[in-house]
Amino acid sequence: MTMESMDDLFLHGLQDIYFAEKHILKALPGMVKSVETDQLKRALEHHRVETQEHVRRLDQVFKMIGAKPAGVECKAMLGILDEAEEQMSEIEDGSVCDAAIIASAQTVEHYEITRYGTLAAWAKELGHTDAAGLLSKTLEEEKAADRSLTKLAAEMVNRAAA
Amino acid sequence: MTMESMDDLFLHGLQDIYFAEKHILKALPGMVKSVETDQLKRALEHHRVETQEHVRRLDQVFKMIGAKPAGVECKAMLGILDEAEEQMSEIEDGSVCDAAIIASAQTVEHYEITRYGTLAAWAKELGHTDAAGLLSKTLEEEKAADRSLTKLAAEMVNRAAA
Repeated sequence: MTMESMDDLFLHGLQDIYFAEKHILKALPGMVKSVETDQLKRALEHHRVETQEHVRRLDQVFKMIGAKPAGVECKAMLGILDEAEEQMSEIEDGSVCDAAIIASAQTVEHYEITRYGTLAAWAKELGHTDAAGLLSKTLEEEKAADRSLTKLAAEMVNRAAA
Repeated sequence: MTMESMDDLFLHGLQDIYFAEKHILKALPGMVKSVETDQLKRALEHHRVETQEHVRRLDQVFKMIGAKPAGVECKAMLGILDEAEEQMSEIEDGSVCDAAIIASAQTVEHYEITRYGTLAAWAKELGHTDAAGLLSKTLEEEKAADRSLTKLAAEMVNRAAA
């Protein structure tokens, strides 16, 4: 794919986050399973359901701009998820592992926050108002997920692990 | 390196961001050179100088906890920087390229924001109060850098590119 215009860049960005979301969906059940703290388990399971909806919204955005839903390899997300998996398999202590899982999950969230933030801004600039609305909705949910993980880390998981 | 305690996890996190910062330092001059918009060029150059200071602070943090400064491969950051480089070489239009560079730079910032946020919280929990202070200082600078990029994108670069 050549990139000559903002439309090309926007489409590439959509494909990047589409690939990322699909890989997050594959990784989340393993994270949920590895978690010891009940509240964290529930938070990640809740986010898994949200992520399914985020993929559906991306399908809609592709449709709105007349493009076929497709992904392009996102090395950053693969790297984040690789490290998460590596740590889950290495760390034996449950509380320490939970602290590592929260850190990985927040890294995932921040990748999504920056990408959805950029995509919503580009959509708006390109006149794709409806698409911008959907992308902003997901952006707010990713920010909320990140905040709830920060709260769980501070009030529960980090103390138990330290 | 085995990871059995929060101390191990904290040290691994420091090594991860140390590697990432060093690679950002290597990548920034190329980004500055590729940029067309003056204000963006200045913002990235300013952030390059800040990044040198962030590496020095990490050196101090390693010293504070009695560890040797060292990096471990951070695949996520390598992926982010790879994609940035790929886009800079592919996009011919200056304004579109600037929009892509801002997006990449904000992805870098968000990786750092999540990692420094976690490291500062862990340092505090582990009783490394001085280290927590230094990590929080860098965290605030990364957040400020991200905000200034959002502003530049919204007020200048995205409009020119669309």
